[in-house]
Amino acid sequence: MKRSVEILDSTLRDGAQGEGISFSVEDKLAVTRLLDELGVAYIEAGNPGSNPKDLEFFRRAQELELKNARLVAFGSTRRKCRRAEEDENVQALLTAGTGAVSLFGKCWDLHVRDILMTTEEENFAMIGDTVAFFKERGKRVIFDAEHFFDGYAANPAFAVAALSAAVEAGADVLALCDTNGGTFPTDIARVTAAVAKRFPEVTVGIHTHNDGGLAVANSLMAVEAGAAHVQGTYLGFGERSGNANLSTIIPNLQLKRGFVCIPENNLPLLTATARAMAEVANVPLSRGEPYVGASAFAHKAGMHADGVIKNSASFEHVGPETVGNQRRFLMSEISGRAAVLEKIRRYCPDITRDSQELTDILSRLKEREQEGYQYEGADGSFELLTRRCLGRIPSFFELSYYRITGEKPYEEGQSAVATLKVRVGDQHQVAAGEGSGPVNALDRALRSALAAFYPALTGMHLVDYKVRVMDSRRATAAKVRVLITSADATGEWTTVGVSDDVIEASWIALSESIEYKLIHTE
Amino acid sequence: MKRSVEILDSTLRDGAQGEGISFSVEDKLAVTRLLDELGVAYIEAGNPGSNPKDLEFFRRAQELELKNARLVAFGSTRRKCRRAEEDENVQALLTAGTGAVSLFGKCWDLHVRDILMTTEEENFAMIGDTVAFFKERGKRVIFDAEHFFDGYAANPAFAVAALSAAVEAGADVLALCDTNGGTFPTDIARVTAAVAKRFPEVTVGIHTHNDGGLAVANSLMAVEAGAAHVQGTYLGFGERSGNANLSTIIPNLQLKRGFVCIPENNLPLLTATARAMAEVANVPLSRGEPYVGASAFAHKAGMHADGVIKNSASFEHVGPETVGNQRRFLMSEISGRAAVLEKIRRYCPDITRDSQELTDILSRLKEREQEGYQYEGADGSFELLTRRCLGRIPSFFELSYYRITGEKPYEEGQSAVATLKVRVGDQHQVAAGEGSGPVNALDRALRSALAAFYPALTGMHLVDYKVRVMDSRRATAAKVRVLITSADATGEWTTVGVSDDVIEASWIALSESIEYKLIHTE
Repeated sequence: MKRSVEILDSTLRDGAQGEGISFSVEDKLAVTRLLDELGVAYIEAGNPGSNPKDLEFFRRAQELELKNARLVAFGSTRRKCRRAEEDENVQALLTAGTGAVSLFGKCWDLHVRDILMTTEEENFAMIGDTVAFFKERGKRVIFDAEHFFDGYAANPAFAVAALSAAVEAGADVLALCDTNGGTFPTDIARVTAAVAKRFPEVTVGIHTHNDGGLAVANSLMAVEAGAAHVQGTYLGFGERSGNANLSTIIPNLQLKRGFVCIPENNLPLLTATARAMAEVANVPLSRGEPYVGASAFAHKAGMHADGVIKNSASFEHVGPETVGNQRRFLMSEISGRAAVLEKIRRYCPDITRDSQELTDILSRLKEREQEGYQYEGADGSFELLTRRCLGRIPSFFELSYYRITGEKPYEEGQSAVATLKVRVGDQHQVAAGEGSGPVNALDRALRSALAAFYPALTGMHLVDYKVRVMDSRRATAAKVRVLITSADATGEWTTVGVSDDVIEASWIALSESIEYKLIHTE
Repeated sequence: MKRSVEILDSTLRDGAQGEGISFSVEDKLAVTRLLDELGVAYIEAGNPGSNPKDLEFFRRAQELELKNARLVAFGSTRRKCRRAEEDENVQALLTAGTGAVSLFGKCWDLHVRDILMTTEEENFAMIGDTVAFFKERGKRVIFDAEHFFDGYAANPAFAVAALSAAVEAGADVLALCDTNGGTFPTDIARVTAAVAKRFPEVTVGIHTHNDGGLAVANSLMAVEAGAAHVQGTYLGFGERSGNANLSTIIPNLQLKRGFVCIPENNLPLLTATARAMAEVANVPLSRGEPYVGASAFAHKAGMHADGVIKNSASFEHVGPETVGNQRRFLMSEISGRAAVLEKIRRYCPDITRDSQELTDILSRLKEREQEGYQYEGADGSFELLTRRCLGRIPSFFELSYYRITGEKPYEEGQSAVATLKVRVGDQHQVAAGEGSGPVNALDRALRSALAAFYPALTGMHLVDYKVRVMDSRRATAAKVRVLITSADATGEWTTVGVSDDVIEASWIALSESIEYKLIHTE
């Protein structure tokens, strides 16, 4: 029988302490739904004692009908020299109304002496009293043994005594924390094994941070040494260098060691969950993210692309489809003809490896890359460029001019107006558009000008707009690269524009996004 | 005596295969200088056989006077059924003129059968012949045992026989590669120890990829198991999820286990090297990067900030100064009064923890964060906001209006013109500026308008300009956050602006950047 590992996701609690991360109550509800769909066991969703917004979350979360996960509220043990019943944080934690609570307590004597400034005995009493308080009220209690590994290295007897205080009061899980994130994998394994042996009656858990770049490995080592509960954050969000990344840990444990972390059928949700989570948190999902990043199965070297085409195991540790991701072949000066050919064949099946056209395309790609273009993320523009080289693209419209005015002060959110003139066949059309900013105005003017000629354009809309300042040291005169993603009922496509001028770069990407739509409509 | 570990940096070779990474010859020379200053043993700088640009690099690199590092050229073993002397790739590798070469050869029977399509005997001969060819010419030979760990798992006898072929021909280093990046730390340790025992006469090395999020840990495990040569890329650049990140591995090994990877005095260069490398590669340095990222020593939770102020070891695994990084306290809704106070005290020493002003500042910060502002990366704007709350800021200028026109077609790179009117005291000033894009034009117009009033402004310049589209799903109508970094002879400061309109957001950041300068001048 396969061994289970309980996953506790703390994106909403420890993850929210990451730089640049801030969740509204709505965001927190959205993340909770995502994690529940994925099927983690626990969602640690906030600290009601330190953040009043979290209490509102727990109130509203009671309306969610969770299928897989249980909510956990997080808080500290009671303060020193006070009864648990009289401690506001303990009361706030109870008010959250969750079936399980995480309680963190001190396991490193340095903290008791220098930060808490109390005695060892009082520290152990704080742990025991608070665990007992929640056990008496029927809660599952996860004891977060803060700084456990540093504490064990400094004074093992003290660190183990802190765990004993929790176990004797009835704690269900001992989550051993590498709070400062600097412990080595071999030490994590040795210490976790010792704790698992010492406390066979409870579940041992692991909670690591990434300050040494080791959080994922340390979690795996702990599981191999006997831990059966893993805490982390789905995308590794967290203070300083972040927490253990669950989107890496789950497939590592489940695909490679046969542990069950989430329901087996849900593994292909891993990538979509990562993208949605990044969207809610409003941070870019790192391309290189193992398993779920856009580059995780992207092949650039010609030899690697060749190899994967012959046998995917040759340069992939798992199949991208197992985690819901996709294989990609990247276009670049070092990507071979094979990868470019593979891509073009989808819409030009008759092109061959030795054709002059392919040579032309490769040299045109190289030129454009030197100007600052990148086609790796812009499949729409890549297709337009190659079709142009092949002479297979009609002229849908031509710009005669545009003129944009932006001003401040302005009225009613419309800070910019664009006028433009386009030629379609032998007809000329002038149009204008207002918008919140120059690019928005330009977009509206262009659509207005083309509407009569191409009614299909009403079925497409822009879904993403990105600006990347290249060589940012040239400050406001630097080149910018604009990426625009558009969608219609059949799918999405991305186009790219480069210029010193953000408006011109946006124009290029905008007009290509429309050309792409027209090619696939006409 | 401390044990040494040879570091081989492959940023310029394996790193260049990462998505979005592309180095010019000038870039490669700049990276080489950075790595040499830092003091790595080897710089693997290119593959002359697959990329003609790399040959030009090696030619020009001969003019560099390297202090610490040796250059290495990389290439494959000879092709099947051909003599080494007659193989163009082998010849290209020789032409690079380096004292050391890396040769990669197949160690996984699957590759020999399915990708190379030759016999086992021919594969071993390819390895032996090529190693011998370079040894006869006096080179140090690093044998990159491609797919070693996967090959060993599938067929250990075959994998070891491939190593034997290299050793018998005189290879100096056996670099064991986890090419697909999916091997677990415990397996890396076991297999590396077995190889070190089998081949005591050579240096065993390790080369890992990050597909399982384990590249750093796997490198450490190999060193603990006997490897004395570590390959990686300085910032983890590389195909798919990247290579082992040397900026994490070096301080891990040197600060925590006492290995010598680079000269001891150079450890504080780690952070500056990371920033410079990211700049050359034109990618943002990830904030969360262990040791060298901007967030690596950033504290947000109030309790953590309090703890670090009392005793820095309480929430830091090493001191930030040991790697040339800095401690930061972040401003946010969950950062306590203590951290905000600590920051404001630098310029308002008389403010106290319980003052009404501090309460006002915290609530104003919260409001602005809800509008999309973030002060974590914008110390200049943070200072202006707090000074405004404290009533300690004069009015240097006020905008009456600006009006910007952008157009296409345009002449001589000046695609935009801005006119604006400002009030300084009781005087009005109108000015205009042309630029490559609206923000550049606005910047010039504003400086021209203020020049007569504030001559100190000639001593400041913009050094960085960043645009972040928030909620990018609203496409061209989305809010944007603009960050501008300015500098004068005394230092740098960053300001932030938020609006639906990129021009208005830029205006806010621009005008604050000038206000900041004037406060510190007047």
